[in-house]
Amino acid sequence: MARSILLLSSLAVLSSTILAASNFPDCTSGPLANNSVCDTSLDTLSRAKALVSILTTAEKINATISSSPGVPRLGLPAYEWWSEGLHGVAKSPGVTFNSDSDSNFSYATSFPQPITLGATFDDELVYAVASVVSTEARAFSNAGQAGLDFWTPNINPFRDPRWGRGQETPGEDPIHLSNYVKSLIAGLEGAGDVDGSEGGKYKKLVATCKHFAGYDIESWNGNYRYQFDASISMQDMVEYYLPSFQTCARDAKVGAFMCSYNAVNGVPTCADSWLLNDVLRDHWNWTGGNDDGFWVTSDCDAIQNVFFPHRWAPTREAAAAAALRAGTDLNCGTYYSRHLQSAYDQSLVDEADLDTAVMRLYGSLVKLGYFDSTDSQPYRSLGWDSVNTPRAQQLAYTAAVEGAVLLKNNNTLPLNLEGKTVAVLGDWAAATTQMQGNYYGQAPYLHSPLYAVQQLLGNDSVFYSAGPGFGDPTTNDWDAIWEATDSADIVLYFGGVDGSVESEGSDRTSIAWTGMQLDVIGEIALLGKPMVVVQMGGGQLDSSPIVNNPGIGALLWAGYPGQDGGFAILDILTGKQAPAGRLPITQYPAAYIASVPMTDMALRPDTSRGFPGRTYRWFDGDPVFAFGFGLHYTSFTADLSLAGSASSFNISSLTSDCTEEYLDLCPFASVPVSVTNTGDATSDYSALLFLKGQFGPEPYPLKTLVSYGRAHNITSLTTTEITLNLTLGSLSRVDESGNRVLYPGSYSLVLDVDPGLARLDFTLTGEAAILDNWPASPVDRVGSPSDEVPEGYFVGGYGSVNNAGDQLPLD
Amino acid sequence: MARSILLLSSLAVLSSTILAASNFPDCTSGPLANNSVCDTSLDTLSRAKALVSILTTAEKINATISSSPGVPRLGLPAYEWWSEGLHGVAKSPGVTFNSDSDSNFSYATSFPQPITLGATFDDELVYAVASVVSTEARAFSNAGQAGLDFWTPNINPFRDPRWGRGQETPGEDPIHLSNYVKSLIAGLEGAGDVDGSEGGKYKKLVATCKHFAGYDIESWNGNYRYQFDASISMQDMVEYYLPSFQTCARDAKVGAFMCSYNAVNGVPTCADSWLLNDVLRDHWNWTGGNDDGFWVTSDCDAIQNVFFPHRWAPTREAAAAAALRAGTDLNCGTYYSRHLQSAYDQSLVDEADLDTAVMRLYGSLVKLGYFDSTDSQPYRSLGWDSVNTPRAQQLAYTAAVEGAVLLKNNNTLPLNLEGKTVAVLGDWAAATTQMQGNYYGQAPYLHSPLYAVQQLLGNDSVFYSAGPGFGDPTTNDWDAIWEATDSADIVLYFGGVDGSVESEGSDRTSIAWTGMQLDVIGEIALLGKPMVVVQMGGGQLDSSPIVNNPGIGALLWAGYPGQDGGFAILDILTGKQAPAGRLPITQYPAAYIASVPMTDMALRPDTSRGFPGRTYRWFDGDPVFAFGFGLHYTSFTADLSLAGSASSFNISSLTSDCTEEYLDLCPFASVPVSVTNTGDATSDYSALLFLKGQFGPEPYPLKTLVSYGRAHNITSLTTTEITLNLTLGSLSRVDESGNRVLYPGSYSLVLDVDPGLARLDFTLTGEAAILDNWPASPVDRVGSPSDEVPEGYFVGGYGSVNNAGDQLPLD
Repeated sequence: MARSILLLSSLAVLSSTILAASNFPDCTSGPLANNSVCDTSLDTLSRAKALVSILTTAEKINATISSSPGVPRLGLPAYEWWSEGLHGVAKSPGVTFNSDSDSNFSYATSFPQPITLGATFDDELVYAVASVVSTEARAFSNAGQAGLDFWTPNINPFRDPRWGRGQETPGEDPIHLSNYVKSLIAGLEGAGDVDGSEGGKYKKLVATCKHFAGYDIESWNGNYRYQFDASISMQDMVEYYLPSFQTCARDAKVGAFMCSYNAVNGVPTCADSWLLNDVLRDHWNWTGGNDDGFWVTSDCDAIQNVFFPHRWAPTREAAAAAALRAGTDLNCGTYYSRHLQSAYDQSLVDEADLDTAVMRLYGSLVKLGYFDSTDSQPYRSLGWDSVNTPRAQQLAYTAAVEGAVLLKNNNTLPLNLEGKTVAVLGDWAAATTQMQGNYYGQAPYLHSPLYAVQQLLGNDSVFYSAGPGFGDPTTNDWDAIWEATDSADIVLYFGGVDGSVESEGSDRTSIAWTGMQLDVIGEIALLGKPMVVVQMGGGQLDSSPIVNNPGIGALLWAGYPGQDGGFAILDILTGKQAPAGRLPITQYPAAYIASVPMTDMALRPDTSRGFPGRTYRWFDGDPVFAFGFGLHYTSFTADLSLAGSASSFNISSLTSDCTEEYLDLCPFASVPVSVTNTGDATSDYSALLFLKGQFGPEPYPLKTLVSYGRAHNITSLTTTEITLNLTLGSLSRVDESGNRVLYPGSYSLVLDVDPGLARLDFTLTGEAAILDNWPASPVDRVGSPSDEVPEGYFVGGYGSVNNAGDQLPLD
Repeated sequence: MARSILLLSSLAVLSSTILAASNFPDCTSGPLANNSVCDTSLDTLSRAKALVSILTTAEKINATISSSPGVPRLGLPAYEWWSEGLHGVAKSPGVTFNSDSDSNFSYATSFPQPITLGATFDDELVYAVASVVSTEARAFSNAGQAGLDFWTPNINPFRDPRWGRGQETPGEDPIHLSNYVKSLIAGLEGAGDVDGSEGGKYKKLVATCKHFAGYDIESWNGNYRYQFDASISMQDMVEYYLPSFQTCARDAKVGAFMCSYNAVNGVPTCADSWLLNDVLRDHWNWTGGNDDGFWVTSDCDAIQNVFFPHRWAPTREAAAAAALRAGTDLNCGTYYSRHLQSAYDQSLVDEADLDTAVMRLYGSLVKLGYFDSTDSQPYRSLGWDSVNTPRAQQLAYTAAVEGAVLLKNNNTLPLNLEGKTVAVLGDWAAATTQMQGNYYGQAPYLHSPLYAVQQLLGNDSVFYSAGPGFGDPTTNDWDAIWEATDSADIVLYFGGVDGSVESEGSDRTSIAWTGMQLDVIGEIALLGKPMVVVQMGGGQLDSSPIVNNPGIGALLWAGYPGQDGGFAILDILTGKQAPAGRLPITQYPAAYIASVPMTDMALRPDTSRGFPGRTYRWFDGDPVFAFGFGLHYTSFTADLSLAGSASSFNISSLTSDCTEEYLDLCPFASVPVSVTNTGDATSDYSALLFLKGQFGPEPYPLKTLVSYGRAHNITSLTTTEITLNLTLGSLSRVDESGNRVLYPGSYSLVLDVDPGLARLDFTLTGEAAILDNWPASPVDRVGSPSDEVPEGYFVGGYGSVNNAGDQLPLD
């Protein structure tokens, strides 16, 4: 397939270049040619200002909606701001796939979902994947089939195991998210581009960090994302909910943000000037004080939600005005187009408010080369030959392999399938688009597990049955299941959950295995045949019944593995590849959720209300599998040391020696990790380094991930070194006001999940030092979760009911 | 359309008779001809016994599964027991509709859902509808396209407004349900058949009262119907959860019952010998002590659920055995077919257990004439000409008209649409299958509201827009909405909820208006045009924002109105028909559910746990609209009297005077109600008679519906008399042990909802008398809801988690 693509692609480059012409403004001979926006010698801000200066008020309002009509009189084309690319160029208003599968731009590489990519703990891989996504996105854009900005990544932490969109994130840990997203944005926006299409001064794409902030509920027990008011303490906010966004803004300088549906401590985020201006633009210094091309879009209809159902603004015009003035520059939805003119007429917004938003938006397009000639821009020559290259295909496969996590293995794996017959069962066995999760595009192929096994063994040796489904008990599938299992030497069961159970708009109500799967699995396990269960889906399931069942030899989790998922899984099962992924989320026992209202945003356990806490840092019970857990086909030993070999550090020396703009980024130490493969199989090893100790404000977390890295292909009986870098921020804690502080105390570094492969202790001495002074909210917005969640149970209702359960009047 | 059907039908009778031959056993020349089952001179039990006596054990086991293969060696045909007919012959394993819409048996009359039929408070209408359903079902059966038993009605009370299947029931009140179901079963099973096809000694159909018992949760917050253990006090059980089933068994002698997915007080109902034998068969004397054709089926896979996820039985075989021995004769699912032989081999069941079940099942078919010659049975000659007759079409229309409930009218209705332009908006405007709810068949036509308005005014005067949807906020529909409203003189909005919000398997999480409907409605109401909102769907929505909005002139609720819903609604809006339906359920404020876990089965309020109580009898808050509420286009006055004019009654006289087998059925009094139409419009009037008073055990209900009846077409300034009959049971209360008792005290009868149109007081004197001694459960099974629902919040989890949240081992 790769060869025929390459043959076709030389034609494709030509045609896409021609097509692209009409998608970009004519800066040569059009009405804009003499406007400074077309003057490539000027800075971004000047160019954007020049364009804004010639727009009418109505044209500016049109420019603030995501399906912008452009300005025909100026030859400024319509522009669709809403393109998606969560794990590959994805279907969305801004992206078009040709429907004829033989034609160019009919597909794009479909990588694993972020939850699987997160399980790789391999940020170089994340960068490589993102680079392919942006290359393919540019190729689509050049063909007039995609925009230049993409509304990805979803970088909210996967706080509650029920969250339907947790699959879109790399996991539950804020440090992991921060490192991941920094690599991801570099790959998407083209910083240090490695694929030969260096953009020079141009941005490759604009990425959009979403959903800012505190968004991680779809619909739980009558609490809908459009209305939910998340009550979050400043400590939890800075420590848990915001680090990934701080990295996006302050450190990765991502091009765009998206404010979210929910409110935080009483204010809908799209109308929250404190969040969008004080924190994002000022404290994090996102834009360096300029409005030169960094913008905030609302989530779709989130500005409507400011009025309804949040009822935060008294009128529809006031909602639109509040959002614009708070710094929401773009509206996905209808409220700016419908109500901003009226808000303007009522003096709720003024010309300067509109100018700022439009400058930011068109500034962004300036940076993307939108107004510049094609021949000056290597990105503009990317064509169909850059899509789904052999390297991209290999990368999609590798990402799926690296992201698979081995949870149980009673000497069953790797399997020798030679000459064997195999039953391939379960509702994931023949998965196609299931493997893509959500926000996906047309894939070049979707190799199911069944297909992979059939390719390996031939159809005659493979017996397939779907069922038993993820929902209702099955009535009709048993016979097919027995027929398949009776015929086979070995049983492979592919199940778990999929998009029918966890999805946008729909959180789970159970974290146990769904439907009748456990009954089917349990009865098959009585047959005494070698049996492997592969757990699919993004949210974890309590797999202890499978772990505890001696009739089941192995359990592998593979998430949403993308276009080549079947081969990636099979190659691990047969030992062609070795598993080395790690769980990026805690696998809680099924009963966990009974004592945890999804609406309770707190992280720390609170016995007074029977709240066990959240994430591996705070959960005070026993997980089924811990964050970071993952077995191998071999065994490892490791040594840990601090470069420089000191074991005590003075805080004032550490801070005064630092020359970084932000103290939390100051280097603390490099930690060389020596890893020895003491077994037979060649294998990757993901080094996860945790910090433990009782320092800073009580209560203390059980441990905290501070750094990680992945070594590849460590052969038997060899040793590899992985260097993990720590900053002062790595050692810091957050106080109740949200300040990040370095505290004196005894610290321990532990490699790998408990009990750990190696450990290293050191102390910090002297006075505590603030690394980051958190900007207080203008009003007292430190929430009290226990006030909001009486007796562990809380229903906000929807539509006309506010969080206190009161009926509100309807205008 | 009716004429062409009649022309086609003479052919149809011939062909269906021929087809039918192979669906029935050959008692003339087949292997069974000499078996007594074919001897029409014998009683049912003898005939069924004779058949069972010649079956092998394996054949008997085959006979206990719903897709029974029959016994080919005996010429006993395969029989599919699972046919559906909730509100018309419905698609199901036992029912086939021809796909060519021009061919015979390609459709059946589709009546309103029971919730709409319940709102008519017209049991003669219920009987007439059920008679049409059974006639059409017999016609389908004769053509080989349906079974003879139908798994309807769903007669669980609509306890919680969130219940996804509440639409399948006539409402929340047990007396209403009991009267309704008695009429319904008479119509379905052919008692006193009025449509000219008198069955003589034969049953017309077998109906199936389901789901026995305590079933009214689909999926709430991790509590799934397959696993839920309903904790119900004996008082609530007898007073609320069981009366409709008692009527089915004891008074209507329905042919079949279905046990449910859930457990009650620790025992899955399909394995509950107390429920199925002590209560159903013995105490209610369902079968008169005989096993001559009354059977219990499991809900589909409910026997599997006894093992998993209930984990009530230790093995799969034990689950199957427990169900069979408890009196579950038929298994929809695989557990009897897969595990009963093994249970037999382990002596967990014996031959007699199997014989009993199979006798009951085939006895039922004997009563249906299954083994008897066609020519002796009028029902067997029913053909396609009996389906969707003009009378059936009229009845479907009438039922929809009678079931519509007017909730608000600021002199807006009836509308004069002559010469007007009308905007028809909302996601119900162009409803087709939406109008059928669930468990529906192919309808002959589905006249949407939009279609009806277009027929009345012509397409050019009607402006349509769908949106805004029931889920996510809309991004794209606003423009179409404005275009429609800008063009129109009058706005009709059809919205609410539908099967995408409330359905089998899916309870609601909010009882407010969903999606962005209130924002859209509210903005349209600002236009100042005459505006009517029609609220559709079975579960009530808190419509107070619509009630309180002066820009909205009227609100009508129409439920799921069936095949002619559009015309039924439009004819009410224009005054061609007058509204006289009454709400068969309470319309709670949206915040109600915040303090009511769905899993809390209690009815009575309990301030200690912040529980406001359930149903109009107990709810201690203010409803938005009360049970029984409904406006008219006219006004009524009424007088109430007790026939005989006494005002004091001695309890021992009342009971000793009675000759009824069951004391609660003893007549107490007739209550003639004189109703005068004091307004201009001709209108029906539904007389709802409530009992009030402080007698019997505390706490006292606010009031109790004791009788009702509907008078038709009362013309202006005329008076009609409706006679309502009361029994001793009408006056009784239930004590904590479940005994039904007549107590001394002061009683009041009040006509209509508060404050009532008329009132009448009387007293009972003497000692309290037990009308019904309730059979105690062999173990202490009086549940304590507050134990099961700690702090108002409860999650059972699913799959491998029991209700205490413990992880159970997997076999």
